[in-house]
Amino acid sequence: MIDFSLYLVTDRSLSKGRSNRDIVVAAVAGGVTCVQLREKHCGTREFIHEALALRPLLRDRRIPLIINDRLDIALAVEADGVHLGQSDMPLAMARKIAGSSLIIGISAESTDDALKAEQEGADYIGISPVFSTPTKTDTAAPLDLGGVNKICGLVDIPLVGIGGINRYNAASVIGAGADGVAVVSAIVSADDPTDATRTLKTLVEQALAKKG
Amino acid sequence: MIDFSLYLVTDRSLSKGRSNRDIVVAAVAGGVTCVQLREKHCGTREFIHEALALRPLLRDRRIPLIINDRLDIALAVEADGVHLGQSDMPLAMARKIAGSSLIIGISAESTDDALKAEQEGADYIGISPVFSTPTKTDTAAPLDLGGVNKICGLVDIPLVGIGGINRYNAASVIGAGADGVAVVSAIVSADDPTDATRTLKTLVEQALAKKG
Repeated sequence: MIDFSLYLVTDRSLSKGRSNRDIVVAAVAGGVTCVQLREKHCGTREFIHEALALRPLLRDRRIPLIINDRLDIALAVEADGVHLGQSDMPLAMARKIAGSSLIIGISAESTDDALKAEQEGADYIGISPVFSTPTKTDTAAPLDLGGVNKICGLVDIPLVGIGGINRYNAASVIGAGADGVAVVSAIVSADDPTDATRTLKTLVEQALAKKG
Repeated sequence: MIDFSLYLVTDRSLSKGRSNRDIVVAAVAGGVTCVQLREKHCGTREFIHEALALRPLLRDRRIPLIINDRLDIALAVEADGVHLGQSDMPLAMARKIAGSSLIIGISAESTDDALKAEQEGADYIGISPVFSTPTKTDTAAPLDLGGVNKICGLVDIPLVGIGGINRYNAASVIGAGADGVAVVSAIVSADDPTDATRTLKTLVEQALAKKG
């Protein structure tokens, strides 16, 4: 059973000069349970180097490494999974190539997206944006907690909320039904990413315990 | 035996508003022997759509479809091969994923690059830039015919020259030892891409015949 409860998505442009590895080392120390490497502006070989820099420190702790968008890179670095948005490779194509060896996550911005992803065999879904977020500007209107709750009631596979989640609202997202929260700036832009992760971890664990 | 003799590399930004498919249909009519789909600025799903638009019209004529950079897309669309630059996935990683099912071509800008690619099991090499070219601005100094001749004397796998090749110099590149010429703007920017391809085809065939 994969623990998606506190899911870090990297973003070098928001990391205040710190490397992906710096941030991930800190987040691992704080208790992150899953890491997605997202690189939107670098070439393939550089993306591979970034992934290889994270792989050993995650593998040693059995924390899944998920690659954003690029199935080729996920396969090349023997990552645990790939996360596909609605403009990335269609799930069926990725599953045909990867088989069941890779975790495949899908971004969903609506109930329809989420149901389709579940039917097609996604391993988990990232529902977004939960709240408005400065990290991504090309997103749909926020789902808010009502939208999260609705999708969680219809889908059985793990659901992770993403978009504008921080220490002030993380518990409410779990309370609305999500199995986990994915964060970008709340960790990568924090002055102390380990401390920020630790705080989120406590909040998420308490919220999950409350659900029983 | 794959015929790399007249190798088209697409570039939508140089195609004067015509689609990749428009250009490839025209180039196929003119006798192109290999097509590389190169997309540097679009998302994965759009890249896949572009590739799927070309696949049937090439497959029907047994003309290889090679995907630039993206092994995931080559696998997803069941292309014939992938072409990897020095900033793309390392050859050994790509071969491990794709096995011998895909043609793997490597860009080489030097004798060392070319020898390494051959040793590592490339199926062909694109040596570049043969001449200075407006299509790519991030390239090394031109090899010129002397450089082409030198590399061709050291490497046994097929070699395709690329960079600044047109109807005025294509024959000289073959004469210098290349097995084929790869062109971008000489076809994609031509007023009549079929006619441009036909002219190049004649020149290349004559130059190859002369070598015996």
